[in-house]
Amino acid sequence: MNLSEYRVNDFIHELASDSPAPGGGSASALAGSIGSALCSMVASLTAGKEKYREHEALMQELIEQTAVLTDGFLDSIDKDTEAFNGVSAVFAMPKGTDEEKAARRAAMQDALKAATRVPYSMMELSLAALELVEKAVGRSNTNAASDLGVAALNLKAAVQGAWLNVRINLAGIKDEAFVMKYRSRGEGILVKALPLADRIYADILNSL
Amino acid sequence: MNLSEYRVNDFIHELASDSPAPGGGSASALAGSIGSALCSMVASLTAGKEKYREHEALMQELIEQTAVLTDGFLDSIDKDTEAFNGVSAVFAMPKGTDEEKAARRAAMQDALKAATRVPYSMMELSLAALELVEKAVGRSNTNAASDLGVAALNLKAAVQGAWLNVRINLAGIKDEAFVMKYRSRGEGILVKALPLADRIYADILNSL
Repeated sequence: MNLSEYRVNDFIHELASDSPAPGGGSASALAGSIGSALCSMVASLTAGKEKYREHEALMQELIEQTAVLTDGFLDSIDKDTEAFNGVSAVFAMPKGTDEEKAARRAAMQDALKAATRVPYSMMELSLAALELVEKAVGRSNTNAASDLGVAALNLKAAVQGAWLNVRINLAGIKDEAFVMKYRSRGEGILVKALPLADRIYADILNSL
Repeated sequence: MNLSEYRVNDFIHELASDSPAPGGGSASALAGSIGSALCSMVASLTAGKEKYREHEALMQELIEQTAVLTDGFLDSIDKDTEAFNGVSAVFAMPKGTDEEKAARRAAMQDALKAATRVPYSMMELSLAALELVEKAVGRSNTNAASDLGVAALNLKAAVQGAWLNVRINLAGIKDEAFVMKYRSRGEGILVKALPLADRIYADILNSL
């Protein structure tokens, strides 16, 4: 069964258990799905309302695009745990002969790269979702302003949580070019996403 | 059915829907449960390990205390939506006569106070959970360091998201003493929780 098909309380208790997966990567994907879903909700609570008619096209665009991002995050809950399990599986590989050791080392590098790409893609989803939240600020149903702020907060937790997962996997990767590429791309996302999330939160808090 | 018994994907789609509840309050409670559960996981991945024997008593304490906080957050998912529905129900009350108008106004004030207390209690849970995460930093399984960082990020999103919900409800409350009390208590929690969460995240990021 996919993790996203677990009941919420079962998922949370599974997260709390002494099994290392699902862990912080899948949790960050869930946080991202919360943020993206709340942006959908606010757009849906705005669409079709006379008062916000001038923003109708934007709201339809937000509903469509956040639906794609939300599903991307929900898929990432499982993908991250699969990638983590891929790393764990390498520990079970034999290491008796030099050939076995070399094969194990190579498999570990591949598994760590896969476990880097999943949270990195969550960082991309988070920035994309934050940019949609920003478009909604000041143009959407003011009754749901706090929900838009909560969306930004969860997307910030998602992008930073995914970054911690990128970084912990990069720490074990020997391929310097790969490490440099993902560090610099990840930092490039953070430098846009974090001030954006902070600005949205501050604007909304000041408006309440 | 309680919201925490929904499947994760159904809950997220319900959050995304054009129904205003569940909304940002319940979402913040879920974020809090993620954070608290991850702290449990890290303590469980540390407990019983020879390398961390000197911290065994602390880990058992963390496992016990985070379990209580996690359940508190899971309960809050439903409590917040119930409190929100309490406010919505007042809009359906009759407002034909002066008596009806007065009864409606009084009911709205009571409903808004209930809808303030739920997210405020989530702020208390978030700070308590962050204090437990802080105790685990530097004393727990280093393989799960990123998970502890993700715990702090989600608890920060929970405390700030709950604060937005406190503030939006306070905005409609006429009882100045109540407003002052919850604003000042909420600010008192933020002033402790936010630097704590930021310090944990920075420490863990620097350790990776």
